[in-house]
Amino acid sequence: MFCYHTKIRLHHTDAAGQVYFSQIFTLAHECYERFLDEAYPLDTLLATGQVLLPIVHAEADYHQPLKIAEPITIEMALARLGDHSFHLRYELKPDDGTIAATVKTSHVAIDPATQQSIEIPNDLRQALSNLHL
Amino acid sequence: MFCYHTKIRLHHTDAAGQVYFSQIFTLAHECYERFLDEAYPLDTLLATGQVLLPIVHAEADYHQPLKIAEPITIEMALARLGDHSFHLRYELKPDDGTIAATVKTSHVAIDPATQQSIEIPNDLRQALSNLHL
Amino acid sequence: MFCYHTKIRLHHTDAAGQVYFSQIFTLAHECYERFLDEAYPLDTLLATGQVLLPIVHAEADYHQPLKIAEPITIEMALARLGDHSFHLRYELKPDDGTIAATVKTSHVAIDPATQQSIEIPNDLRQALSNLHL
Amino acid sequence: MFCYHTKIRLHHTDAAGQVYFSQIFTLAHECYERFLDEAYPLDTLLATGQVLLPIVHAEADYHQPLKIAEPITIEMALARLGDHSFHLRYELKPDDGTIAATVKTSHVAIDPATQQSIEIPNDLRQALSNLHL
Repeated sequence: MFCYHTKIRLHHTDAAGQVYFSQIFTLAHECYERFLDEAYPLDTLLATGQVLLPIVHAEADYHQPLKIAEPITIEMALARLGDHSFHLRYELKPDDGTIAATVKTSHVAIDPATQQSIEIPNDLRQALSNLHL
Repeated sequence: MFCYHTKIRLHHTDAAGQVYFSQIFTLAHECYERFLDEAYPLDTLLATGQVLLPIVHAEADYHQPLKIAEPITIEMALARLGDHSFHLRYELKPDDGTIAATVKTSHVAIDPATQQSIEIPNDLRQALSNLHL
Repeated sequence: MFCYHTKIRLHHTDAAGQVYFSQIFTLAHECYERFLDEAYPLDTLLATGQVLLPIVHAEADYHQPLKIAEPITIEMALARLGDHSFHLRYELKPDDGTIAATVKTSHVAIDPATQQSIEIPNDLRQALSNLHL
Repeated sequence: MFCYHTKIRLHHTDAAGQVYFSQIFTLAHECYERFLDEAYPLDTLLATGQVLLPIVHAEADYHQPLKIAEPITIEMALARLGDHSFHLRYELKPDDGTIAATVKTSHVAIDPATQQSIEIPNDLRQALSNLHL
């Protein structure tokens, strides 16, 4: 499991006084990017241009609203690891121990040149496997 | 079916050169707000404070990337209408007739004072029903 | 003068109940992109890679808050046209005829290969000049 | 001077491959909110409803592009402290010691009930003064 600590900021919220629903996905992706920082940096990935990891499915369940200035821990776990794809699962947890939201993302490895799916690079596969344990 | 015509703008995109995944949800919600403009204006809803319609579930399938300056039509349909909740389904269609992404959102009517689910207001129910036909 | 009609949406607002300050810049840039659609499409610009038009300065004055579902007209005018740069000025006007915010952006034409400033492309210069009149 | 360490994420960038211009303001405001966390929490401020601190002017100078996954330090300093208003200045610094962008924001203290300017609350004034030294 990979943990990312962050805080709800004004730009995450909307006029209903809580976090705007699509920002939950952005927060989950920040956690994923933090994981990639150590495992398989996104800047290197984009610069080398040998693989892209587009999201083909994303979903979220909203259990309770998140408020401005609220500290949250995002816990990311591997849900499935295939040859050409992987599924991640995130829980957004305020300090009270509840789960405010659950997010899932499904990623496919593709070759930018051909747009065909390819095998997940070894370094990333290794890092994802470690996440699993 | 309710249709909303818009265009992909620079702020929707990211360094991978396509629309950032969570912006698909924001674009779908703009379509929903356009529908509410005519059916049950969100400013009135927030001002009167008698009902909130939070999203309890959202999901998206990404079929093909959307590029900057690309015109899209978002078609919104009613997927389910319950007593206290409704489900919407959106298709994001570029001009070539394909479906770039499909989005679903589930909304619950709650009383802001008690945070309990309540019946969907009649005006909104009527507008959603019309959408169905 | 170039006019762009739009509406304040939930994702523009924050928990203080009004438009979040940096969204004013995004709204102004949408107006600029709408202008470019007709004059010098941004997708072509990014695809050909012969010129970039980065913003080197941006500023906004906020005169009155903008609320959700509020229709606004953004009026964009040319403030200055140099050989290698241009300055734009935007007024965000709600329906009551007041000016809610004023935005300025300064753009420089640069060669992506050398990162040196170059002359503004003729098509764009012409379109900007028309804007002036 | 108040320092905030963060990192450029995918959602900050656009299809031109760098940070989208208005995200610079959002990043600066995150720094300001981090400062308020310790000095005068924004959640308390919004909950008590005795003062609002809207931004009446914001500007940015962009010196060099910021790329995805780039670590930055945002240094925030007090530029001016009046009876009813204060001005902040931010420098966004990548690890190479350069200044990628400079941001300024001007805030006014107003009474939400009357919308008239009022004196800056003492706690906040004290925290801002400390920032100055």
